Amino acid sequence: MAVTDDVVLVDQHCHGVLVTDVTAEEFAAGLTEADTAGRPDRWRSMLGLAVRRWCAPVLDLPAHATPAEYLARRNDLGWREVTRRLLRAAGVGHWFVDTGYATDTSPTELADLGGGTGHEVLRVEQVLEDTTAGSATELLDRVGAALRASAAVAFKSVVGYRGGLGLPARRPSERDTRQAAERWLRGGTRLTDPVLHAWLVHEAATVGAETGRALQFHTGFGDADLHLHRADPLALTDFLRARRDVDVVLLHCWPYHRGAAYLAHVFDTVSVDLGLMVPFAGARTGAVIAETLELAPFESVRYSSDGNLLPEIHHLGAVLWRHHLGRLLDEWIGDGVLTAADAERLAHDVGGGNALRSAPHLLGDLDDQR
Amino acid sequence: MAVTDDVVLVDQHCHGVLVTDVTAEEFAAGLTEADTAGRPDRWRSMLGLAVRRWCAPVLDLPAHATPAEYLARRNDLGWREVTRRLLRAAGVGHWFVDTGYATDTSPTELADLGGGTGHEVLRVEQVLEDTTAGSATELLDRVGAALRASAAVAFKSVVGYRGGLGLPARRPSERDTRQAAERWLRGGTRLTDPVLHAWLVHEAATVGAETGRALQFHTGFGDADLHLHRADPLALTDFLRARRDVDVVLLHCWPYHRGAAYLAHVFDTVSVDLGLMVPFAGARTGAVIAETLELAPFESVRYSSDGNLLPEIHHLGAVLWRHHLGRLLDEWIGDGVLTAADAERLAHDVGGGNALRSAPHLLGDLDDQR
Amino acid sequence: MAVTDDVVLVDQHCHGVLVTDVTAEEFAAGLTEADTAGRPDRWRSMLGLAVRRWCAPVLDLPAHATPAEYLARRNDLGWREVTRRLLRAAGVGHWFVDTGYATDTSPTELADLGGGTGHEVLRVEQVLEDTTAGSATELLDRVGAALRASAAVAFKSVVGYRGGLGLPARRPSERDTRQAAERWLRGGTRLTDPVLHAWLVHEAATVGAETGRALQFHTGFGDADLHLHRADPLALTDFLRARRDVDVVLLHCWPYHRGAAYLAHVFDTVSVDLGLMVPFAGARTGAVIAETLELAPFESVRYSSDGNLLPEIHHLGAVLWRHHLGRLLDEWIGDGVLTAADAERLAHDVGGGNALRSAPHLLGDLDDQR
Repeated sequence: MAVTDDVVLVDQHCHGVLVTDVTAEEFAAGLTEADTAGRPDRWRSMLGLAVRRWCAPVLDLPAHATPAEYLARRNDLGWREVTRRLLRAAGVGHWFVDTGYATDTSPTELADLGGGTGHEVLRVEQVLEDTTAGSATELLDRVGAALRASAAVAFKSVVGYRGGLGLPARRPSERDTRQAAERWLRGGTRLTDPVLHAWLVHEAATVGAETGRALQFHTGFGDADLHLHRADPLALTDFLRARRDVDVVLLHCWPYHRGAAYLAHVFDTVSVDLGLMVPFAGARTGAVIAETLELAPFESVRYSSDGNLLPEIHHLGAVLWRHHLGRLLDEWIGDGVLTAADAERLAHDVGGGNALRSAPHLLGDLDDQR
Repeated sequence: MAVTDDVVLVDQHCHGVLVTDVTAEEFAAGLTEADTAGRPDRWRSMLGLAVRRWCAPVLDLPAHATPAEYLARRNDLGWREVTRRLLRAAGVGHWFVDTGYATDTSPTELADLGGGTGHEVLRVEQVLEDTTAGSATELLDRVGAALRASAAVAFKSVVGYRGGLGLPARRPSERDTRQAAERWLRGGTRLTDPVLHAWLVHEAATVGAETGRALQFHTGFGDADLHLHRADPLALTDFLRARRDVDVVLLHCWPYHRGAAYLAHVFDTVSVDLGLMVPFAGARTGAVIAETLELAPFESVRYSSDGNLLPEIHHLGAVLWRHHLGRLLDEWIGDGVLTAADAERLAHDVGGGNALRSAPHLLGDLDDQR
Repeated sequence: MAVTDDVVLVDQHCHGVLVTDVTAEEFAAGLTEADTAGRPDRWRSMLGLAVRRWCAPVLDLPAHATPAEYLARRNDLGWREVTRRLLRAAGVGHWFVDTGYATDTSPTELADLGGGTGHEVLRVEQVLEDTTAGSATELLDRVGAALRASAAVAFKSVVGYRGGLGLPARRPSERDTRQAAERWLRGGTRLTDPVLHAWLVHEAATVGAETGRALQFHTGFGDADLHLHRADPLALTDFLRARRDVDVVLLHCWPYHRGAAYLAHVFDTVSVDLGLMVPFAGARTGAVIAETLELAPFESVRYSSDGNLLPEIHHLGAVLWRHHLGRLLDEWIGDGVLTAADAERLAHDVGGGNALRSAPHLLGDLDDQR
């Protein structure tokens, strides 16, 4: 019985799941951020091992079932039953769902399958890319209005994938922004203009600050489109120093999680998220969390799974977090590093309390779970 | 009984302590490098846990006393008694005190409180900023003379906080230096000119080489003013390759401690310091030390606490180093990695011997403690 | 009995050994990547401890013999007997030998001493530097022909030591390449021209793709000539994204092994090598391997020793890999992370199978050892 066992999680950054059965190739593609899934064998990785160990029993198979056995059983049960089992066993009370990727299920549909409540995380690049306007002024106004009007629980930017995280401390000038918007209106489809992107992120920060919503950034580990260096969260330093009005969440972070922890240490508005690495690093989850905790205040660390497409990822995020953080905390209790009460509080805060504190309208749930 | 238990430490980089009782807010501010100390709760961190675990018993409280209990007892005893207890229990024979920050106590006053002997570490930027002169030539001469005349045990540069560690391999030309000095005399108050800064560091290196004093650099983890990337010790590579005449100590280093260990491996004049992270990482101290030892020669690693303002930091540097390095070495002895005699020698060298070797006039003390 | 014990290794990147007895100074120089070997004492490092622990018994000394005892016994036995014992005890079936450094022994001579079979790894910079030609066209043609005609098992580039790993995604234009070749013919002796270097690496990639040979890159940890930042494997991202036609092996990697593991995760043509760090990190080998395995697919990780000059390095690569990976896998088996069969397969693949798969003509040996 670890102190993490009964924490009702807030999965503060995830995506929807596929609503069909999958082939072996499609499943393998879900186990990697690569855009290919032939060689190397994706089951032969920390994540693949974790699926066999932790997910197989949820489908009534023995732990460490073979990939072939797993996939056969998965299709016997059918995607809906598999998804229900895996998501429900994750023990999640709130799903914060980035609706910009893996959109077969809406936040509500994900929660219908998995229990708990679904909330949208709005990808700000998509807001701009989806907005039509007759003039630059209209475009900028409409984007700002869309952000303000959104019911999203948080905003998210993928600028780390585009121009990189080296955002300016200040919002670009009105004139530069208008010119960039005009260029965009003459034929943009994918936001890559650094001026317009900087304006958008500053605008989202402003709206976030006004409306009590955090701004999440993709940082660190991601797919083959990324230049990992440009996604180092430290590149955000000037932006973070200037924008202390808004809560910022650094997603994923690995292998820059220690630098992210430094940012969370020196800027009280910054939080570090554990998602993506928690499921992908498998049995190494505890080591990555421990490195993050070296410097990050415990109130500035947040659980998520970054689960997408395969409900196995959502599930593994939760069970690996419970198992490995639980084990780390048990060791620390045994060594006299902290008390059981301290450990319990840490687990509840990282597991959900910290995320709920920047989504105040959900705070009732936090009290319920205590 | 670990091999680290009876090492008389050389705290080769620390600062003075406050000489007043502190409020809860002031204490919390001392537990962080952030410039704010409200939210998140600074007690809820590896460092905060370590205060409750290790410092509370020194004040006659049970381990893991609450923050409120700790602060109440601290003020009951009064700052002087608390400071005496915490510093003396650290078991430090020599304090190398950077007199450029947290200056309520001089090196001698710190040693009066904590036992052992105090020595000044001279911050070279402060020397220049405090020098008045009628001409560029006079300024440069006076700075050089002040460095030469100083009784400091070592020099320290904070260029990592200003222009960054990318110092040129060569001293700027006389003409460029004179022009930079003239600009400075027309109204500088905080040294940020890269030419004048490069001259200053090269001058300090030259004086250090001539007089047998090491040159310490702030690298890695520090406060919210920092751009951590620019404080990566690897940026010093060209400078270190060119200036093999002077002993250089890379302070703090985290999260770049492995890169710092590489520099200590390839340049025999370079040492890696463990300070700041040893107290801040709390129970993770052993992991950080182990990563540093992967590549750094054992004769090129130095203990310090970077203690400042709160004597708790000085104390925790020592007890965490003893506990966690002691444990690591015990594990290694148990696994046959090294002998008990090897472990003892490593502990004595890192704990003080290595620092004393670049302060030859103190070496008598090293022999005493063996 | 660990699952790594009986793996016949493929040392997929090493060098030749000295064919003379060595002085204490020469031996110390072999224990470091520094270009000096006086102070600090090179025996007092993780590598030095590992020599005393693991190599001393191979020379009939007790584990942890002193350096003086070790060196005396080493010279009593003579270099040939010492080398035979250390290399044979490594249990290596194939030696992939970079013939651009430490060339006293050819690949065949190394294998004669150590058992198994020797194969050449061809350093592409040396091919160009050794090629004479009367015109640019002739130079480029001859280099290409030399690569094609080579019997090498793999190519290797040290561009990380020269202009750095920031190679362009595309081969330079014919005109730029010809001009660069003309400049080279007017007096080059050491390849540093970025255009000609980029052409050379692209040409080697093309020939590698055509002839089924991997292209190895020096990345990360190396000697004092290096600027470690410029050897960060992530700088290769654009090149790797563009050149998915050729197998690429990232050598050494530390302290950037997690970034290297990301590249191996997102690009299925990329492998991560463990060499150099495995012997140098000594008892920390297990930690470095574990960090690499967080994200690298198991089929994309390769054993090597990077042994050079001293056969102790080749030996320690093997015994440390067996001991520490074996221990990590035993722990994981005990914790239910994977099955014994999974662990055995991982050990065989990393130990040799993965390297043999990109050297198809050697694959018969892989089947033999299974």
